[in-house]
Amino acid sequence: MIEVLIVGSIGLDDIETPFGKIINTLGGSAVYSSIASSFFAPTGIVGVIGEDFPKEHMDLIERRRIDTKGIEELEGKTFRWSGKYEFDLNTAQTLKTELNVIENFKPKIPEEYKNAEYVFLGNIDPELQLSVLEQIKNPKLVVSDTMNYWIESKREKVMEVINAVDIALMNDSEARELFKTPNLVKAAKEILKLNSDYAIIKKGEHGAVMFTDNKHFSVPGYPLEDIKDPTGAGDSFAGALTGFLAQTKELNDSNLRKAMVYGSVLASLEVEGLGVTNMDFITQFRIKERFEEFKEIVKF
Amino acid sequence: MIEVLIVGSIGLDDIETPFGKIINTLGGSAVYSSIASSFFAPTGIVGVIGEDFPKEHMDLIERRRIDTKGIEELEGKTFRWSGKYEFDLNTAQTLKTELNVIENFKPKIPEEYKNAEYVFLGNIDPELQLSVLEQIKNPKLVVSDTMNYWIESKREKVMEVINAVDIALMNDSEARELFKTPNLVKAAKEILKLNSDYAIIKKGEHGAVMFTDNKHFSVPGYPLEDIKDPTGAGDSFAGALTGFLAQTKELNDSNLRKAMVYGSVLASLEVEGLGVTNMDFITQFRIKERFEEFKEIVKF
Repeated sequence: MIEVLIVGSIGLDDIETPFGKIINTLGGSAVYSSIASSFFAPTGIVGVIGEDFPKEHMDLIERRRIDTKGIEELEGKTFRWSGKYEFDLNTAQTLKTELNVIENFKPKIPEEYKNAEYVFLGNIDPELQLSVLEQIKNPKLVVSDTMNYWIESKREKVMEVINAVDIALMNDSEARELFKTPNLVKAAKEILKLNSDYAIIKKGEHGAVMFTDNKHFSVPGYPLEDIKDPTGAGDSFAGALTGFLAQTKELNDSNLRKAMVYGSVLASLEVEGLGVTNMDFITQFRIKERFEEFKEIVKF
Repeated sequence: MIEVLIVGSIGLDDIETPFGKIINTLGGSAVYSSIASSFFAPTGIVGVIGEDFPKEHMDLIERRRIDTKGIEELEGKTFRWSGKYEFDLNTAQTLKTELNVIENFKPKIPEEYKNAEYVFLGNIDPELQLSVLEQIKNPKLVVSDTMNYWIESKREKVMEVINAVDIALMNDSEARELFKTPNLVKAAKEILKLNSDYAIIKKGEHGAVMFTDNKHFSVPGYPLEDIKDPTGAGDSFAGALTGFLAQTKELNDSNLRKAMVYGSVLASLEVEGLGVTNMDFITQFRIKERFEEFKEIVKF
């Protein structure tokens, strides 16, 4: 039985960084977030692949004991993204996006997924996010993410998703763009007005912040000297956050704060290698160790 | 007897923000930092003014019981800076800088300042910072700041200052520029290699980080919805940090971390008003209250 249901993209990525280039690597928001979630709770993934999806990629997902019944194979090619990071590694320059099979994807949630209590709507077309939500019976917690691409092309639908979820999560630049303000506190307040209980804003190397009506929590970025590839950091953050909350089964301020830190732990471990592959080597010991390091970093 | 000696610029600022414009307002690195320091320890200021320096500005400084014996009046005009902030308030666009009397300034430290144990070398020509340092007898702690202007025009002297101090403090963009790396951890390590015990990097709305050989501390930015004017935030941070360390008289990890938080407290209170004037209304109660808020913000 899965506890966490994750929907998002499953793709083949070509990634170029100053430290190297990898092609045809396993990628996509659902992949990074499911792997991160799987360290905390039984996780199922919903997404679509094409006929060209390599078996070794599916093997990696299954090695993490992620339930793959929700992965549908359609005729045609898998979603592809290629991006390039410049020297400062801060923002990816998208070189190419091929939607391929995602264009005709209508998520059908397997019967046994419908009772999942924790749901992460990873970055994908907001209409697909909404259609997943309609099929879930009685979720305890729904977390959403989005991307500038959807903010620019389907702003109203992005708003509808935020309106329907408990925790709306996005990048700082996306929050600024969505609510047309440079001030993140103002943007967070707009998210809360849209009926979302929590607004979480990811700030890359500067960590992440969570806002609710009367509380504010901030987790710093982990001081990494060697970031190899930032791809998937935000998805790893979101997956670990949702997975940890599923593990605790209780949504309160203390668990939410810890979930933010576990999110940061997984994100910081993930960016230490190119692509998704080094997530294969993350252990519970390293997660625990880095969690304790975060405590030291903010202690005063 | 002063405990903290602060050197830096004293000036007249014209500041334009989306929320208003003020002209001929009291400004300068030594002014913001002395006022912030004065909440924690007896502070003396070293700097230069021209014949046009308004009496009410001197009154404001003296109201904070800052020792002004180190302020020299020279023939000519006071240093002037005018800057403009766009909508996002992140970086000031310098419209005009007139060095005026600063050009011929040779700091002469009053005899009774020479035993000051805590020294902050605020942003000013690094050669002036070094000449101040030569005149101090036996400081326990020296903190330095700088600015992109000096990094670009007197890089070697900036390095010499960092080499001579205990805590080198600068903005993230300055650290990146000085050591030609986008990675702040790498930049901080370069600072430490230059014989400075601590590297503190200010990151504006994202807070500040402190690096030593084997420890790392991070303080978040205070979530301000209404930043009126960021001018002087970094100087207020540095002044409060130095002042608090002078108050505790003991340089250890715990006090340094608290000093970083008090720095952030003063910076966050200062930017809530235009110019320096609202620092006149900061109280010990508000400082304590915001310090406690910072505890809540990072607790997990």
